[in-house]
Amino acid sequence: MQRIEHIGIAVKDLTASIPLFEQLLNTPCYKTEQVEREGVDTAFFQTGESKIELLQARHEDSPISKFIARKGEGIHHIAFAVENIEAEMRRLEALGFELLSESPKPGADGKRICFLHPKGTNGVLVELCADENT
Amino acid sequence: MQRIEHIGIAVKDLTASIPLFEQLLNTPCYKTEQVEREGVDTAFFQTGESKIELLQARHEDSPISKFIARKGEGIHHIAFAVENIEAEMRRLEALGFELLSESPKPGADGKRICFLHPKGTNGVLVELCADENT
Repeated sequence: MQRIEHIGIAVKDLTASIPLFEQLLNTPCYKTEQVEREGVDTAFFQTGESKIELLQARHEDSPISKFIARKGEGIHHIAFAVENIEAEMRRLEALGFELLSESPKPGADGKRICFLHPKGTNGVLVELCADENT
Repeated sequence: MQRIEHIGIAVKDLTASIPLFEQLLNTPCYKTEQVEREGVDTAFFQTGESKIELLQARHEDSPISKFIARKGEGIHHIAFAVENIEAEMRRLEALGFELLSESPKPGADGKRICFLHPKGTNGVLVELCADENT
């Protein structure tokens, strides 16, 4: 793990939350992106070397809908930048961490990603996150 | 807000979680600290320019006990480094954010801190965090 790539925050209404986080972080939202595969609309803010990613569900079956129904709005996951995602997945699997996909999946913001099961990480949903070309 | 200073994670048992996060992050815990005032034991890990802070309650009245009872183990708060905490508190208050203390309090790791009410930040408990000497 090299650094925090981003923190994902589940919100009900991006239209209201984007200006709120622009005020909070004192920085403009630099990108919005639909991630159809995950059923979410996203908005990104830069803070130091990391990003804040707001996530709004596009439909009721989205993991974000289910998260908000269970826990309310709030921090949903923490993503760490890794250099070689396949090597990091093998390292963590050998240590007993449970991967939620067998190979990296395409994520928002041009990344290759893999989630770890939060049952093995004290309830924290952890995402590994690598650039497309690595 | 300059960068993510740390992510606070509520855990039930530091003794079990410290080696787990050492494996996950592939970096040693570099410090443990008791914060009597907040009723927590803490453990720190460096990742890039940010830290991961594990928090275990020291008693049942600790905010961490209450958080775990309500939501389970997991990400508890996100702390942002600020240069001038008083100026940042005034800026956010003027924008309508609710501060949880009128002046900065001493925090773990030699910091001066102030929390924002999560009702005004989409359920995210936000901490402002400045060095002691600023």
